[in-house]
Amino acid sequence: MTTPEAPNGGDNFIERIPDGDDRTRLVCQDCGFINYQNPKIVVGVVASWEERVLLCRRAIEPRTGYWTLPAGYMELRESAADGAKREAWEEARAELEIDQLLAVYSIPRISQVQLIFRANLLSEKVSAGPETQEVMLCRKEDIPYDDLAFPSVHWALRDHFDLLGQTAFAPRANPQGETGDQTPGL
Amino acid sequence: MTTPEAPNGGDNFIERIPDGDDRTRLVCQDCGFINYQNPKIVVGVVASWEERVLLCRRAIEPRTGYWTLPAGYMELRESAADGAKREAWEEARAELEIDQLLAVYSIPRISQVQLIFRANLLSEKVSAGPETQEVMLCRKEDIPYDDLAFPSVHWALRDHFDLLGQTAFAPRANPQGETGDQTPGL
Repeated sequence: MTTPEAPNGGDNFIERIPDGDDRTRLVCQDCGFINYQNPKIVVGVVASWEERVLLCRRAIEPRTGYWTLPAGYMELRESAADGAKREAWEEARAELEIDQLLAVYSIPRISQVQLIFRANLLSEKVSAGPETQEVMLCRKEDIPYDDLAFPSVHWALRDHFDLLGQTAFAPRANPQGETGDQTPGL
Repeated sequence: MTTPEAPNGGDNFIERIPDGDDRTRLVCQDCGFINYQNPKIVVGVVASWEERVLLCRRAIEPRTGYWTLPAGYMELRESAADGAKREAWEEARAELEIDQLLAVYSIPRISQVQLIFRANLLSEKVSAGPETQEVMLCRKEDIPYDDLAFPSVHWALRDHFDLLGQTAFAPRANPQGETGDQTPGL
Protein backbone atom coordinates (compact mmCIF):
# COMPACT_ATOMS: atom_id res chain seq x y z
CA MET A 1 0.00 0.00 0.00
CA THR A 2 1.33 3.40 -0.86
CA THR A 3 0.17 6.65 0.60
CA PRO A 4 1.02 10.25 -0.21
CA GLU A 5 3.26 10.13 2.83
CA ALA A 6 5.27 7.13 1.77
CA PRO A 7 6.85 8.32 -1.46
CA ASN A 8 9.95 6.16 -1.09
CA GLY A 9 8.34 2.97 0.03
CA GLY A 10 5.77 2.10 2.61
CA ASP A 11 4.91 -1.03 0.66
CA ASN A 12 4.71 -3.01 3.84
CA PHE A 13 2.02 -0.95 5.50
CA ILE A 14 -1.27 -2.68 6.18
CA GLU A 15 -4.49 -1.33 7.59
CA ARG A 16 -5.43 -2.61 11.01
CA ILE A 17 -6.84 -1.36 14.30
CA PRO A 18 -4.02 -1.10 16.85
CA ASP A 19 -4.65 -2.36 20.39
CA GLY A 20 -6.66 0.16 22.38
CA ASP A 21 -7.61 2.17 19.34
CA ASP A 22 -11.02 2.42 17.72
CA ARG A 23 -10.17 2.85 14.07
CA THR A 24 -7.97 1.52 11.31
CA ARG A 25 -4.43 2.85 11.05
CA LEU A 26 -1.56 2.08 8.69
CA VAL A 27 0.91 -0.26 10.42
CA CYS A 28 4.28 -1.32 8.97
CA GLN A 29 4.58 -5.12 8.91
CA ASP A 30 8.37 -4.84 9.01
CA CYS A 31 8.96 -2.62 11.98
CA GLY A 32 5.58 -2.23 13.71
CA PHE A 33 5.52 1.52 13.19
CA ILE A 34 1.99 2.96 13.44
CA ASN A 35 1.51 5.72 10.93
CA TYR A 36 -1.10 7.90 12.64
CA GLN A 37 -2.31 10.10 9.86
CA ASN A 38 -3.55 13.41 11.08
CA PRO A 39 -5.10 16.26 9.19
CA LYS A 40 -2.47 18.66 7.95
CA ILE A 41 -2.43 22.34 8.62
CA VAL A 42 -1.78 24.77 5.82
CA VAL A 43 -0.94 28.30 6.92
CA GLY A 44 -1.09 31.24 4.57
CA VAL A 45 -1.72 34.94 4.14
CA VAL A 46 -3.67 37.47 2.23
CA ALA A 47 -1.01 40.15 2.47
CA SER A 48 -1.80 43.73 1.49
CA TRP A 49 0.24 46.70 0.40
CA GLU A 50 -2.18 49.61 0.33
CA GLU A 51 -5.06 48.38 -1.85
CA ARG A 52 -3.12 45.58 -3.53
CA VAL A 53 -2.73 41.96 -2.45
CA LEU A 54 0.22 39.65 -2.93
CA LEU A 55 -0.15 36.73 -5.36
CA CYS A 56 2.42 34.12 -6.39
CA ARG A 57 2.55 32.14 -9.62
CA ARG A 58 3.37 28.54 -8.79
CA ALA A 59 6.62 27.02 -10.04
CA ILE A 60 5.76 23.57 -8.70
CA GLU A 61 3.10 20.91 -9.07
CA PRO A 62 0.22 20.78 -8.58
CA ARG A 63 -1.15 23.66 -10.63
CA THR A 64 2.16 24.96 -11.94
CA GLY A 65 1.71 28.37 -13.56
CA TYR A 66 -1.48 29.21 -11.68
CA TRP A 67 -1.77 31.99 -9.11
CA THR A 68 -1.99 31.35 -5.42
CA LEU A 69 -1.50 32.96 -2.03
CA PRO A 70 1.69 32.44 -0.04
CA ALA A 71 0.78 29.30 1.91
CA GLY A 72 2.18 25.92 2.82
CA TYR A 73 2.37 23.20 5.41
CA MET A 74 2.90 24.34 8.95
CA GLU A 75 6.11 22.88 10.37
CA LEU A 76 6.82 21.52 13.83
CA ARG A 77 7.57 23.87 16.69
CA GLU A 78 6.19 27.04 15.17
CA SER A 79 2.97 28.91 15.84
CA ALA A 80 0.38 29.17 13.08
CA ALA A 81 1.08 32.88 12.61
CA ASP A 82 4.83 32.32 12.49
CA GLY A 83 4.32 29.58 9.91
CA ALA A 84 2.30 31.94 7.73
CA LYS A 85 5.08 34.55 7.96
CA ARG A 86 7.66 31.92 7.06
CA GLU A 87 5.71 30.84 3.98
CA ALA A 88 5.37 34.45 2.82
CA TRP A 89 9.12 34.81 3.07
CA GLU A 90 9.90 31.48 1.38
CA GLU A 91 7.53 31.95 -1.53
CA ALA A 92 7.55 35.71 -2.08
CA ARG A 93 10.42 37.15 -0.02
CA ALA A 94 7.71 39.17 1.69
CA GLU A 95 8.07 40.72 5.10
CA LEU A 96 4.85 41.38 6.87
CA GLU A 97 2.97 41.71 10.11
CA ILE A 98 0.04 39.43 10.81
CA ASP A 99 -3.21 41.30 11.43
CA GLN A 100 -5.76 38.61 12.32
CA LEU A 101 -7.18 35.27 11.29
CA LEU A 102 -9.21 35.75 8.12
CA ALA A 103 -10.47 32.22 7.59
CA VAL A 104 -10.37 28.59 8.62
CA TYR A 105 -11.16 26.35 5.68
CA SER A 106 -11.56 22.59 5.94
CA ILE A 107 -10.91 20.37 2.94
CA PRO A 108 -12.03 17.00 4.32
CA ARG A 109 -11.21 14.92 1.23
CA ILE A 110 -7.53 15.67 1.59
CA SER A 111 -7.80 16.12 5.37
CA GLN A 112 -6.47 19.62 5.30
CA VAL A 113 -7.25 22.60 7.49
CA GLN A 114 -6.18 25.97 6.15
CA LEU A 115 -5.54 28.86 8.50
CA ILE A 116 -5.40 32.02 6.39
CA PHE A 117 -4.33 35.24 8.05
CA ARG A 118 -4.88 38.84 7.01
CA ALA A 119 -1.50 40.56 6.97
CA ASN A 120 0.12 43.86 6.06
CA LEU A 121 3.30 43.97 4.04
CA LEU A 122 6.08 46.00 5.61
CA SER A 123 7.47 46.83 2.19
CA GLU A 124 6.37 46.45 -1.41
CA LYS A 125 9.69 44.81 -2.15
CA VAL A 126 8.67 41.23 -2.90
CA SER A 127 10.21 38.67 -5.24
CA ALA A 128 9.85 35.04 -6.26
CA GLY A 129 11.25 32.35 -3.97
CA PRO A 130 12.30 28.92 -5.30
CA GLU A 131 8.76 27.53 -5.57
CA THR A 132 7.41 30.63 -7.31
CA GLN A 133 7.69 31.76 -10.94
CA GLU A 134 6.75 35.36 -10.29
CA VAL A 135 4.95 37.49 -7.75
CA MET A 136 2.64 40.45 -8.12
CA LEU A 137 0.82 43.01 -6.04
CA CYS A 138 -2.61 43.01 -7.52
CA ARG A 139 -5.61 45.32 -7.32
CA LYS A 140 -8.99 43.71 -6.75
CA GLU A 141 -10.12 44.43 -10.31
CA ASP A 142 -6.96 42.88 -11.76
CA ILE A 143 -7.08 39.53 -9.98
CA PRO A 144 -6.73 36.70 -12.53
CA TYR A 145 -9.80 34.81 -11.35
CA ASP A 146 -9.63 32.30 -14.19
CA ASP A 147 -6.07 31.41 -13.34
CA LEU A 148 -6.24 30.90 -9.58
CA ALA A 149 -4.75 27.62 -8.44
CA PHE A 150 -7.29 26.35 -5.92
CA PRO A 151 -10.88 26.94 -4.80
CA SER A 152 -9.65 28.15 -1.42
CA VAL A 153 -7.67 30.94 -3.12
CA HIS A 154 -10.96 32.19 -4.54
CA TRP A 155 -12.59 31.93 -1.12
CA ALA A 156 -9.81 33.74 0.69
CA LEU A 157 -9.68 36.63 -1.77
CA ARG A 158 -13.46 37.01 -1.66
CA ASP A 159 -13.50 36.89 2.13
CA HIS A 160 -10.63 39.35 2.30
CA PHE A 161 -12.36 41.97 0.16
CA ASP A 162 -15.70 41.35 1.93
CA LEU A 163 -14.14 42.06 5.30
CA LEU A 164 -11.94 44.97 4.26
CA GLY A 165 -12.14 47.78 6.81
CA GLN A 166 -13.63 45.56 9.53
CA THR A 167 -11.45 45.21 12.58
CA ALA A 168 -13.46 42.66 14.57
CA PHE A 169 -14.94 39.73 12.75
CA ALA A 170 -15.35 36.00 13.03
CA PRO A 171 -13.04 34.20 10.64
CA ARG A 172 -14.77 32.84 7.61
CA ALA A 173 -15.26 29.15 6.93
CA ASN A 174 -15.88 27.32 3.64
CA PRO A 175 -18.66 28.82 1.55
CA GLN A 176 -21.90 26.94 2.30
CA GLY A 177 -21.77 23.44 0.87
CA GLU A 178 -18.33 23.79 -0.70
CA THR A 179 -15.70 21.22 0.15
CA GLY A 180 -12.81 22.54 -1.94
CA ASP A 181 -12.99 19.54 -4.26
CA GLN A 182 -13.55 21.51 -7.44
CA THR A 183 -10.23 20.48 -8.91
CA PRO A 184 -9.83 16.69 -8.71
CA GLY A 185 -6.45 15.42 -7.69
CA LEU A 186 -5.48 18.39 -5.56
CA MET B 1 15.20 6.37 17.69
CA THR B 2 11.74 6.33 19.14
CA THR B 3 9.17 9.04 18.80
CA PRO B 4 5.79 9.54 20.41
CA GLU B 5 4.34 8.31 17.13
CA ALA B 6 6.27 5.05 17.03
CA PRO B 7 5.02 3.32 20.17
CA ASN B 8 5.44 -0.17 18.78
CA GLY B 9 8.74 0.21 17.11
CA GLY B 10 10.29 2.79 14.88
CA ASP B 11 13.73 1.77 16.13
CA ASN B 12 15.09 1.97 12.63
CA PHE B 13 14.20 5.58 12.01
CA ILE B 14 17.12 7.93 11.46
CA GLU B 15 17.13 11.66 10.94
CA ARG B 16 18.19 12.82 7.50
CA ILE B 17 17.23 15.37 4.85
CA PRO B 18 15.35 13.60 2.05
CA ASP B 19 16.21 14.52 -1.56
CA GLY B 20 14.59 17.79 -2.55
CA ASP B 21 13.70 18.70 1.01
CA ASP B 22 15.25 21.41 3.14
CA ARG B 23 15.05 19.96 6.62
CA THR B 24 15.64 16.82 8.61
CA ARG B 25 12.92 14.15 8.62
CA LEU B 26 12.66 10.74 10.25
CA VAL B 27 13.34 8.06 7.63
CA CYS B 28 13.01 4.30 8.22
CA GLN B 29 16.23 2.51 7.30
CA ASP B 30 14.28 -0.72 6.66
CA CYS B 31 11.57 0.41 4.28
CA GLY B 32 12.50 3.96 3.26
CA PHE B 33 9.30 5.40 4.70
CA ILE B 34 9.59 9.12 5.38
CA ASN B 35 7.76 10.07 8.54
CA TYR B 36 6.76 13.66 7.86
CA GLN B 37 5.80 14.95 11.25
CA ASN B 38 3.25 17.69 11.07
CA PRO B 39 1.68 19.76 13.79
CA LYS B 40 -1.42 18.12 15.15
CA ILE B 41 -4.81 19.73 15.35
CA VAL B 42 -6.84 19.50 18.51
CA VAL B 43 -10.48 20.44 18.14
CA GLY B 44 -12.68 21.23 21.12
CA VAL B 45 -15.61 23.19 22.46
CA VAL B 46 -16.71 25.50 25.17
CA ALA B 47 -20.30 24.31 25.17
CA SER B 48 -22.97 26.22 27.06
CA TRP B 49 -26.34 25.37 28.49
CA GLU B 50 -27.82 28.67 29.58
CA GLU B 51 -25.17 30.23 31.81
CA ARG B 52 -23.31 26.98 32.48
CA VAL B 53 -20.42 25.42 30.56
CA LEU B 54 -19.61 21.76 30.06
CA LEU B 55 -16.52 20.34 31.78
CA CYS B 56 -15.20 16.78 31.79
CA ARG B 57 -13.04 15.11 34.43
CA ARG B 58 -10.34 13.13 32.66
CA ALA B 59 -10.25 9.34 33.06
CA ILE B 60 -7.00 9.01 31.08
CA GLU B 61 -3.43 10.21 31.23
CA PRO B 62 -2.11 12.81 31.14
CA ARG B 63 -3.74 14.73 33.97
CA THR B 64 -6.18 12.03 35.05
CA GLY B 65 -8.75 13.43 37.47
CA TYR B 66 -8.38 17.02 36.31
CA TRP B 67 -11.06 18.98 34.53
CA THR B 68 -10.94 19.77 30.85
CA LEU B 69 -13.07 20.78 27.91
CA PRO B 70 -14.30 18.19 25.41
CA ALA B 71 -11.42 18.16 22.94
CA GLY B 72 -9.16 15.77 21.09
CA TYR B 73 -7.23 15.10 17.93
CA MET B 74 -8.98 15.88 14.72
CA GLU B 75 -9.33 12.79 12.54
CA LEU B 76 -8.94 12.42 8.79
CA ARG B 77 -11.77 13.38 6.48
CA GLU B 78 -13.74 15.54 8.87
CA SER B 79 -14.05 19.29 9.14
CA ALA B 80 -12.74 21.05 12.22
CA ALA B 81 -16.26 21.83 13.42
CA ASP B 82 -17.41 18.25 12.87
CA GLY B 83 -14.39 17.01 14.81
CA ALA B 84 -15.27 19.24 17.72
CA LYS B 85 -18.84 17.90 17.71
CA ARG B 86 -17.52 14.32 17.59
CA GLU B 87 -15.26 14.90 20.58
CA ALA B 88 -18.14 16.41 22.57
CA TRP B 89 -20.15 13.29 21.87
CA GLU B 90 -17.31 10.86 22.62
CA GLU B 91 -16.26 12.48 25.87
CA ALA B 92 -19.51 13.87 27.26
CA ARG B 93 -22.35 12.38 25.20
CA ALA B 94 -23.18 16.00 24.41
CA GLU B 95 -25.22 17.09 21.44
CA LEU B 96 -24.62 20.64 20.36
CA GLU B 97 -24.54 23.16 17.60
CA ILE B 98 -21.34 25.00 16.82
CA ASP B 99 -21.63 28.77 17.14
CA GLN B 100 -18.26 30.12 16.03
CA LEU B 101 -14.54 29.79 16.46
CA LEU B 102 -13.59 31.06 19.91
CA ALA B 103 -9.83 30.62 19.80
CA VAL B 104 -6.82 29.30 17.95
CA TYR B 105 -4.05 28.41 20.39
CA SER B 106 -0.59 27.30 19.31
CA ILE B 107 1.52 25.13 21.60
CA PRO B 108 4.79 25.08 19.64
CA ARG B 109 6.74 22.81 22.00
CA ILE B 110 4.38 19.94 21.30
CA SER B 111 3.55 21.23 17.80
CA GLN B 112 -0.14 21.44 18.49
CA VAL B 113 -2.74 23.84 17.18
CA GLN B 114 -5.99 23.95 19.10
CA LEU B 115 -9.19 25.10 17.42
CA ILE B 116 -11.72 25.78 20.16
CA PHE B 117 -15.30 26.52 19.16
CA ARG B 118 -18.08 28.22 21.06
CA ALA B 119 -21.10 25.92 21.00
CA ASN B 120 -24.59 25.62 22.39
CA LEU B 121 -25.82 22.39 23.91
CA LEU B 122 -29.07 21.12 22.46
CA SER B 123 -29.93 19.44 25.76
CA GLU B 124 -28.58 19.44 29.27
CA LYS B 125 -28.50 15.66 29.12
CA VAL B 126 -24.77 14.93 29.18
CA SER B 127 -22.84 11.99 30.60
CA ALA B 128 -19.33 10.61 30.79
CA GLY B 129 -17.89 8.81 27.76
CA PRO B 130 -15.14 6.18 28.10
CA GLU B 131 -12.30 8.67 28.55
CA THR B 132 -14.19 10.72 31.14
CA GLN B 133 -14.79 10.11 34.86
CA GLU B 134 -17.65 12.55 35.19
CA VAL B 135 -19.10 15.59 33.51
CA MET B 136 -20.64 18.75 34.87
CA LEU B 137 -22.41 21.86 33.74
CA CYS B 138 -20.67 24.56 35.69
CA ARG B 139 -21.41 28.19 36.43
CA LYS B 140 -18.56 30.67 36.01
CA GLU B 141 -18.20 31.12 39.76
CA ASP B 142 -18.02 27.37 40.35
CA ILE B 143 -15.25 26.53 37.87
CA PRO B 144 -12.54 24.48 39.63
CA TYR B 145 -9.68 26.72 38.50
CA ASP B 146 -7.13 24.91 40.64
CA ASP B 147 -8.04 21.59 39.09
CA LEU B 148 -8.05 22.38 35.40
CA ALA B 149 -5.97 20.00 33.31
CA PHE B 150 -4.08 22.32 30.97
CA PRO B 151 -3.18 25.99 30.55
CA SER B 152 -5.28 26.18 27.41
CA VAL B 153 -8.38 25.17 29.38
CA HIS B 154 -7.82 28.26 31.53
CA TRP B 155 -7.37 30.38 28.43
CA ALA B 156 -10.47 29.07 26.69
CA LEU B 157 -12.72 29.56 29.70
CA ARG B 158 -11.39 33.08 30.24
CA ASP B 159 -11.82 33.93 26.57
CA HIS B 160 -15.30 32.45 26.55
CA PHE B 161 -16.54 34.54 29.45
CA ASP B 162 -14.77 37.65 28.10
CA LEU B 163 -16.57 37.33 24.78
CA LEU B 164 -19.97 36.34 26.15
CA GLY B 165 -22.72 38.24 24.36
CA GLN B 166 -20.51 39.28 21.46
CA THR B 167 -21.60 37.92 18.12
CA ALA B 168 -18.75 39.13 15.91
CA PHE B 169 -15.24 38.82 17.21
CA ALA B 170 -11.81 37.72 16.15
CA PRO B 171 -10.90 34.40 17.70
CA ARG B 172 -8.47 34.69 20.53
CA ALA B 173 -4.89 33.47 20.41
CA ASN B 174 -2.54 32.51 23.25
CA PRO B 175 -2.31 35.10 26.00
CA GLN B 176 0.66 37.38 25.31
CA GLY B 177 3.91 35.52 25.87
CA GLU B 178 2.31 32.26 26.97
CA THR B 179 3.30 29.08 25.17
CA GLY B 180 1.18 26.58 27.05
CA ASP B 181 4.24 24.99 28.62
CA GLN B 182 3.19 25.52 32.22
CA THR B 183 2.85 21.80 32.85
CA PRO B 184 5.98 20.00 31.67
CA GLY B 185 5.48 16.72 29.92
CA LEU B 186 2.11 17.54 28.42
